[in-house]
Amino acid sequence: MTLPTTNLDALLSDLNGLDLITEPNQVAKLSQDYYHFSPVLTPQLKDKVGDVVIRPANEAEVLRVAQACVNYKIPLTVRGAGTGNYGQCIPLAGGVILDMTRMSAVKWMKPGLACVEPGAKLAAIDKQTRDIGWEIRMAPSTYRTATIGGFVGGGSGGIGSVTYGQLRDRGNLLAVRVVTMEDQPRAIELRGDDVYKVAHAYGTNGIITELEIPLAPAYPWTEIIVSFSDFMSAAQFGQTLSDADGMIKKLVCICPDPIPKYFAALKSYLPEGTHCAFLMISETCLEPLNEFVKDFKGTIVYQKSAQDASRGAAIAEYSWNHTTLHARSVDPTITYLQTLFPDDKNLQLLEHMYHHFGDEVMMHLEFLRYGGTARPASLQLVRYSTEERLNEIIKYHESKGAYIFNPHTYLIEDGGMKMVDTAQLQFKQKVDPYGLLNPGKMRAWLEKDGK
Amino acid sequence: MTLPTTNLDALLSDLNGLDLITEPNQVAKLSQDYYHFSPVLTPQLKDKVGDVVIRPANEAEVLRVAQACVNYKIPLTVRGAGTGNYGQCIPLAGGVILDMTRMSAVKWMKPGLACVEPGAKLAAIDKQTRDIGWEIRMAPSTYRTATIGGFVGGGSGGIGSVTYGQLRDRGNLLAVRVVTMEDQPRAIELRGDDVYKVAHAYGTNGIITELEIPLAPAYPWTEIIVSFSDFMSAAQFGQTLSDADGMIKKLVCICPDPIPKYFAALKSYLPEGTHCAFLMISETCLEPLNEFVKDFKGTIVYQKSAQDASRGAAIAEYSWNHTTLHARSVDPTITYLQTLFPDDKNLQLLEHMYHHFGDEVMMHLEFLRYGGTARPASLQLVRYSTEERLNEIIKYHESKGAYIFNPHTYLIEDGGMKMVDTAQLQFKQKVDPYGLLNPGKMRAWLEKDGK
Repeated sequence: MTLPTTNLDALLSDLNGLDLITEPNQVAKLSQDYYHFSPVLTPQLKDKVGDVVIRPANEAEVLRVAQACVNYKIPLTVRGAGTGNYGQCIPLAGGVILDMTRMSAVKWMKPGLACVEPGAKLAAIDKQTRDIGWEIRMAPSTYRTATIGGFVGGGSGGIGSVTYGQLRDRGNLLAVRVVTMEDQPRAIELRGDDVYKVAHAYGTNGIITELEIPLAPAYPWTEIIVSFSDFMSAAQFGQTLSDADGMIKKLVCICPDPIPKYFAALKSYLPEGTHCAFLMISETCLEPLNEFVKDFKGTIVYQKSAQDASRGAAIAEYSWNHTTLHARSVDPTITYLQTLFPDDKNLQLLEHMYHHFGDEVMMHLEFLRYGGTARPASLQLVRYSTEERLNEIIKYHESKGAYIFNPHTYLIEDGGMKMVDTAQLQFKQKVDPYGLLNPGKMRAWLEKDGK
Repeated sequence: MTLPTTNLDALLSDLNGLDLITEPNQVAKLSQDYYHFSPVLTPQLKDKVGDVVIRPANEAEVLRVAQACVNYKIPLTVRGAGTGNYGQCIPLAGGVILDMTRMSAVKWMKPGLACVEPGAKLAAIDKQTRDIGWEIRMAPSTYRTATIGGFVGGGSGGIGSVTYGQLRDRGNLLAVRVVTMEDQPRAIELRGDDVYKVAHAYGTNGIITELEIPLAPAYPWTEIIVSFSDFMSAAQFGQTLSDADGMIKKLVCICPDPIPKYFAALKSYLPEGTHCAFLMISETCLEPLNEFVKDFKGTIVYQKSAQDASRGAAIAEYSWNHTTLHARSVDPTITYLQTLFPDDKNLQLLEHMYHHFGDEVMMHLEFLRYGGTARPASLQLVRYSTEERLNEIIKYHESKGAYIFNPHTYLIEDGGMKMVDTAQLQFKQKVDPYGLLNPGKMRAWLEKDGK
């Protein structure tokens, strides 16, 4: 699809005075995200670029952009910092890239709650809310650069999920304000379960302009790495610690051998050939933590106090998909999977997969709460050969009862959900009747007319 | 057992200058707790009294008392506020009652942690720690009067356990200082797993003089009562809410019909014949709570904001064993059980028991976290007939897989543990070689010489 130039010119003329970027290199750069973690997505997405980047300063400007796009039937794709990995913000049909990073205010905050603009970086929100003793509940490993709007629009969980579950869980997102793409665009507020109409919808059915999010107490987080001589001790340690109701934790990440080898900056701390647990634990829980370490015959090889945690590399930056990032910086042929293992305290399927695939699928565990119980998710590192083999690996996992959230698709439904979210589709039909918002990403929309 | 008067006189003379109570009515009153909830314990304990009550002001005085008791081989039974229900602090062999309520200081506090003296009342600790935004993690329904030393020495969990589990879980008690009853009494500090040598040991193996406890963030707790037209909807609502990782909660208590009838002060709020959920939920989670209420077709019949929660009756005072208290104030023949139901989200055994016993065993649920999962515990109200029938009811529960923490025994092991705690016994052998501390309560000690 290419846009009629006359329409684009008319749009630019209508939006005179806004912060517009048309310089092709900059537009190309702001058309990208981190889909290149996937060798499957790369050829599908690498040539996709928008026509213009617009950086609104407030909701009134968003409304102006929405009106102009509706008037000229020009696609609009919203982006935050572009740290997603599934091509969430790649403009498949060109048009306007709406870069939200200028709308970055924390509008208000109080104990347990904050109201923020979508372009606020996660770390920047924390910097403000920690002044009153609170912080955001969960964040991806791209915490320093990612925006809250991008996280809610395209993410699911991360550091903090071992305590608070997923963004999807009630209580983790309280309200959103969205601008519609109707004939007369307007801003509407969604609260309660209505927030899920637009959460994790990749900006396909509304432009988020404000979010009300819960805050968690800002415990003094100590960063700790514990090494273990065998994989299952490390994994069981992770499960047991995650299940420990009296222990305050933010990260329980297990990087079995050989993954620690990819972490150059931490090399001196990580004993060769060991399996490491990367933890963020409240300083107040350090003594009981030692008892768990003893139980599983681990060794604490790295420890950074909460006070020092702001200096140097944060161990959270080796967790979640930053594990993949570090591995790929050494070996760019590596890709990854996203897997939820069953609720089984013995971790039998996990153990099976660890041995079954050996070095081809390197286990990397992130414990998270799912339906009230801590479970291991795995962002396995995969030594990629072919798409067929990757699909075989996925199918094998699914056949054994491990749930795959496929990161090698840009379709919302084909990632985690596997089925059409009727509420999201109906909301799109209402607020984006012309299908201009991030076209091509919602399978239900593409197939709605029986195509 | 009666004490040689000469020994007691010698002890009183040695302890001249301390706060001593010998007036018989006062001593008798301070020899009591709330064992009368149990018709089994009542005849066993009703005549037990100490010889003298001593109220130490500091650890140095505790050491003086311990030394005198060792010198004259006089039993010593520690008590806090005497709110226990198993006769934990009833002096089976007379002697000294050590009333710790004068040692009530909060020695220091910081985010997530406090150091307190054992006689500090739970509510009084919160009053101070809330100034810095924190509060104790869990408390029994006797929160206003109970002491922290008594709770740790004789309790297990309560309001707050739906989030933090039990006192027994690592992280919920960080250190204790205890005075021994050796030939030369001394104060020693126990940290890490060593705290469990004396926690829930009824003061049989050390006199707690200081505790380091974790603090939880003081969320703005809203009090809510939701009514349901059928029992299983109320129970499933409780399970689902307890499993909701994004919801901040402190109390999920289900009082099915007819229990609400016993709550006179709340009568106007509780619709006749309904099954009620008593909740403490962070104000920040009220909107998502409404979605759960809708899912289970409940009706919010009572709501008190966090700001107003300090006024009037607290709904927590209708939960845990205060449920029993209110029922007994209407019908003193009622007693109770303590049951942990299996980890089964369908609550099948619970449903079975509800129907099986009908009005004889009135279900009352308290959700708590146990090993990383929320489960219903039940403090059922039992219409008592005979001890035999009570034991039959207990046996039936056990035969079906419900775990009974028998509240009708004063022996530590026969309540919850069912087996000897070797660490507690060994610690007693070391620090109380003459068996003077709360004699008669530790089965392992009584049987240690093959008796």
